[in-house]
Amino acid sequence: MTKQERGVRTRLALIRSAAQVFEQRGYAQTHLAEISSQAGVSTGALHFHFRNKAAVADAVEAEAVASLHRAARTAGEHPVNALQTLTDVSHAFALLLGQDVVVRAGLQLACDTGRRPGVKLHQAWAECVRRLLVRAGDEGSLADDVSVHDLTAAVVGATTGFLSMRRESEEWLTHRSLTGFWQLLLPRVATPQVLASLSPEGTAPVPST
Amino acid sequence: MTKQERGVRTRLALIRSAAQVFEQRGYAQTHLAEISSQAGVSTGALHFHFRNKAAVADAVEAEAVASLHRAARTAGEHPVNALQTLTDVSHAFALLLGQDVVVRAGLQLACDTGRRPGVKLHQAWAECVRRLLVRAGDEGSLADDVSVHDLTAAVVGATTGFLSMRRESEEWLTHRSLTGFWQLLLPRVATPQVLASLSPEGTAPVPST
Repeated sequence: MTKQERGVRTRLALIRSAAQVFEQRGYAQTHLAEISSQAGVSTGALHFHFRNKAAVADAVEAEAVASLHRAARTAGEHPVNALQTLTDVSHAFALLLGQDVVVRAGLQLACDTGRRPGVKLHQAWAECVRRLLVRAGDEGSLADDVSVHDLTAAVVGATTGFLSMRRESEEWLTHRSLTGFWQLLLPRVATPQVLASLSPEGTAPVPST
Repeated sequence: MTKQERGVRTRLALIRSAAQVFEQRGYAQTHLAEISSQAGVSTGALHFHFRNKAAVADAVEAEAVASLHRAARTAGEHPVNALQTLTDVSHAFALLLGQDVVVRAGLQLACDTGRRPGVKLHQAWAECVRRLLVRAGDEGSLADDVSVHDLTAAVVGATTGFLSMRRESEEWLTHRSLTGFWQLLLPRVATPQVLASLSPEGTAPVPST
């Protein structure tokens, strides 16, 4: 392994360790010493990669955003229609949240009141939802009396709420709970013809775990 | 004014001042000295009423919960049907949030990761929504294929999400945004007969401010 490869690996270990500590303690109560010790490196090594705690948090957040973007791209790779893509993207995010501590901590950091967030995750998600719903409207998939503005707010609101309540109980944001949400919402917002082709449970294979 | 009345008044001033500081800085970054100074009392007076910062936060939260309960009771005083009561309660909460810093700070404290919350506000709200929706089912107001469990989750999720995004922009939780939410949801979940009698904008008079 070259020195550069080792550097990349250490940086990733620090981000992962930081995510674990941030998730447990919240941003304000996190100490850098715990992050470096849990990553198995010296505090000097941590400071080589990150100037301070804010820089570590920014890196966790950036890594989370990158993972969410990758998941959204994958879910949208074989677009059937925009409503199905939106459903699939939401399921992909829920799956990622269950699997990846960096994604969980990054989303939590973005909502932490004790910190000025580096990225506006809510805004990015709202923009993604709005774009897909405008496309659904252009495709003629939306019922006539559905306002894209109100539907965007309902989807962003509900998913954001599920995410924040997930901290109290994981059941709030699972494949099952999202399926229930789309079963409730899709019959209201899709035209009958499009509705028949939609899968509220998503079209990606669900892992058995 | 008796000594006891002065004590009650000072305690309320401290709770109000604490709510303002908590709202601005978050729990972890709040210092007791700022709370007492903003309330115009000595730190000694603060410590007479509250043992520590956690006790102040608990008092803010308890006061917020009491206000929310009062608003819910008022909104439910003249029950037409449970779906309308739920709509009215949500509007009453949004109004209260706009008006009352103690309610805003109390809700924020309940979601703060840097603190073990004294009350489970999400759970209390979820229980209130579930109870009203079970009643709506008993009244025969809900469409046949609507699951009370999924509908409870959607309402609690969306309102919780609106609340958390309100910190970025107040537009997420207003009389207007909630009206749009109910306009979207009610036609899906209510029987056609009940739907005709429902007001998504609520039945309480809306203040002109």
